[in-house]
Amino acid sequence: MENTIPNKLPVIFIMIMMLAASGLVSCSKQADLRDKPNFIIIFADDLGYGDLGAYGHPTIKTPHLDKMAQEGQKWTNFYAAASVCTPSRAGLLTGRLPVRSGMCSDKHRVLFPNSKNGLPTSEITLAEQLRKAGYKTACIGKWHLGHHEQYLPVHHGFDHYYGIPYSNDMDRIPGGGYLEYFQDHDAIKTEDFNVPLIRNTDIIEQPADQNTITKRYSEKVVSFIRENKNQPFFIYLAHNLPHIPLFASEEFLGKSRRGLYGDVVEEIDHGVGKILAALKAEGLDNNTIVVFTSDNGPWLLFETHGGSAGLLRAGKGSTWEGGMREPCIFWGPGRIKPAVVSEIGSTMDIFITFSKMAGVPMPDDRIMDGVDLGPVLAGNGTGQRKSILYYRGTKLYAARLGDYKAHFITQGAYGMHGKKEVHSPPLLYNLNHDPSEQYDVAEYHPEIIRQINELVKEHQSDLIMGEDQLADRN
Amino acid sequence: MENTIPNKLPVIFIMIMMLAASGLVSCSKQADLRDKPNFIIIFADDLGYGDLGAYGHPTIKTPHLDKMAQEGQKWTNFYAAASVCTPSRAGLLTGRLPVRSGMCSDKHRVLFPNSKNGLPTSEITLAEQLRKAGYKTACIGKWHLGHHEQYLPVHHGFDHYYGIPYSNDMDRIPGGGYLEYFQDHDAIKTEDFNVPLIRNTDIIEQPADQNTITKRYSEKVVSFIRENKNQPFFIYLAHNLPHIPLFASEEFLGKSRRGLYGDVVEEIDHGVGKILAALKAEGLDNNTIVVFTSDNGPWLLFETHGGSAGLLRAGKGSTWEGGMREPCIFWGPGRIKPAVVSEIGSTMDIFITFSKMAGVPMPDDRIMDGVDLGPVLAGNGTGQRKSILYYRGTKLYAARLGDYKAHFITQGAYGMHGKKEVHSPPLLYNLNHDPSEQYDVAEYHPEIIRQINELVKEHQSDLIMGEDQLADRN
Repeated sequence: MENTIPNKLPVIFIMIMMLAASGLVSCSKQADLRDKPNFIIIFADDLGYGDLGAYGHPTIKTPHLDKMAQEGQKWTNFYAAASVCTPSRAGLLTGRLPVRSGMCSDKHRVLFPNSKNGLPTSEITLAEQLRKAGYKTACIGKWHLGHHEQYLPVHHGFDHYYGIPYSNDMDRIPGGGYLEYFQDHDAIKTEDFNVPLIRNTDIIEQPADQNTITKRYSEKVVSFIRENKNQPFFIYLAHNLPHIPLFASEEFLGKSRRGLYGDVVEEIDHGVGKILAALKAEGLDNNTIVVFTSDNGPWLLFETHGGSAGLLRAGKGSTWEGGMREPCIFWGPGRIKPAVVSEIGSTMDIFITFSKMAGVPMPDDRIMDGVDLGPVLAGNGTGQRKSILYYRGTKLYAARLGDYKAHFITQGAYGMHGKKEVHSPPLLYNLNHDPSEQYDVAEYHPEIIRQINELVKEHQSDLIMGEDQLADRN
Repeated sequence: MENTIPNKLPVIFIMIMMLAASGLVSCSKQADLRDKPNFIIIFADDLGYGDLGAYGHPTIKTPHLDKMAQEGQKWTNFYAAASVCTPSRAGLLTGRLPVRSGMCSDKHRVLFPNSKNGLPTSEITLAEQLRKAGYKTACIGKWHLGHHEQYLPVHHGFDHYYGIPYSNDMDRIPGGGYLEYFQDHDAIKTEDFNVPLIRNTDIIEQPADQNTITKRYSEKVVSFIRENKNQPFFIYLAHNLPHIPLFASEEFLGKSRRGLYGDVVEEIDHGVGKILAALKAEGLDNNTIVVFTSDNGPWLLFETHGGSAGLLRAGKGSTWEGGMREPCIFWGPGRIKPAVVSEIGSTMDIFITFSKMAGVPMPDDRIMDGVDLGPVLAGNGTGQRKSILYYRGTKLYAARLGDYKAHFITQGAYGMHGKKEVHSPPLLYNLNHDPSEQYDVAEYHPEIIRQINELVKEHQSDLIMGEDQLADRN
């Protein structure tokens, strides 16, 4: 009976099967892609722990972020990877301590316009990672991981880039002292800062008009959402503000009870509202995860032009909580379970968390510093992160383990004349009982200091420090 | 034709009309009473501006108060009438500065168990005021306006009283230093404080069991709501906690990440949830206004057993913002328009606000210090209050006018070794731009200092200080 089957049939059968299979693969690939959530990271610059309504500011009104916190998760023990721009951003995008990539330095705090280097191409960014799963990727806003062409976002996994490649106070046209200059804000014009606005690799505006930059960044995100709604996307929106100098568009200027700093934050909040509204309008709200946080604490030196760390101690540059603990809101209807979360989290956890959600395996050739926040976000598990390491430059100043934080070295926020002090034994604070780090309890808990010392020892045992990328300047 | 009407008819007609009218009056009185909203004031003790989730605390979880703030109004510039218990409570209940009733003193901060006097009977309390409109009234919790019989709540307009008549750290059985004693909390037992629990005028428990006092207070409120649901009522729930010494019931002990202080606040929050649930269950939620606030800022001397003023400066006892600015949430579905309100408000405004809502005319024989918050609460008007006067004892230390606050005298929070300093010209802060009172701008705004000086002069021109009721002690 086998021989009654014509010879050609198997060939045709195989061909049909192949066509069908290719169709199936294609269908399943499409379904699979649609199933992957979109990701949007909104990263503020120098925003303090206390600068949003939901985090207790009395006169900065942030209705959109407050609503995002009510509908999503408001994290209260969430940390930036460093207390200053460049290393913090390296930590976020690589999921690794900045000391591993060489993106922190004891010579210079951050990259400057005359810096020669940037994030090494050997590093894997979250954008590169998500691209492996078919994501379209865009970086909109401040980069600060190298402004020479080979270091720009389009060479680090982003399909598109639109933004000012470093801090908005750089390229300053000289005149006056630094602090005095910013205090007399009426005298400050956006033209005083010759910062470039770059599209992909081209300068399209210089000086960039900072009065409208916040508004334009938010609008670019909305456009990107609309244009890429049919495939998974990852948008990294890194606002240049509320870093000094402060600028707001006419619609917001003079509107906040908090003054110019409030105007700026309220314009960022307004943009968040526009972005969430666009997601809803496109039917993407149930398939998109949005996270809002900041790169480091408030730049206190600039008085009312800097933000507030709320009840936390010190600010930008410092390894006291005010330097690194940030507001953090995760939003994603149906995916993120509404809650106030006091588990420990870090921007470095976002890499693994989003990779897992997108089904991309983690790099296996390097040490990663994140944990998966997925179970906490879904509301079906407890936090995996037990510790935080607080670096200032390449020096480990402090370490948190559970409730407790040991300070080996302390120093104040940038520009606040804080004396550097070495502590042996370290100072010890219970951060959950004493979030303002006021009451040293080292004498009562030698066993906890021992545990923290062991944690540090273990961390340092396999630490290979990346070559300093910030040191070389013209 | 007139004469065809029998003689008796007019008499019968008049009688019928009278009966009908009396029925109408009675019906209308009933309808009128049902129309009057119920009022509940929940007053915490020594709770700081930063001690609720909605006001930015990282590890105190207050889901019920947070929800109340989302459904109602979260005020961010709301003040207690003084920075310490007795005068603060006098201000709340009389709608007048405590200096007018003699309920503040330079000799003693508050009433003590050996004090002879209390709130003068010549003062009109909010309870007396609302009784005029047929309200049933209850005071549950801490009174602290005189514990001798003639000064107790039942002689100040309350139908019922149940509570500890002064602070929960009074009547202490001697032993150990004050601060050290409270730091070593494991050694503290409720039996160490021989405070009485009073029902109406009778001591029913001594020492009062403070482990269950918060729970019992909330339960009493729920019972009162159920028993008085058919007429308008006013409940003044004044918790004895989180004033030190801290106690929580078993259900809450050890449950908060913030430690014992957090346990206590979370139990208060739980009680708020029970009270709102009872209002809903009885169908009273659309006809009841609930306000939650506190008597003064955190008692910082007691370290982690004291609260946090968040981003505000100093705490209890001080005329810096941390001493007198408090969380304040107004809730009343359909009556209170949901919002974050940064207008200025004071506990002294509650007297006139609730009087107006209940249709009771204001006393016309005395100076009142409140403004009607009604238009802001209803969402159809702007704030009427432009100023705040900050007293320490009987001395005016500071005054706020609009955005600005002038300090004539400064001194730290109780027990924080703050030196008393007189400032001429005064220090001047823009509270909306600089809520932490860090940047003195006196030199830039002499005209504002002049305006504030005039405000103070006008206030003092007709001020008659009440006789000191706190001075006499056994």
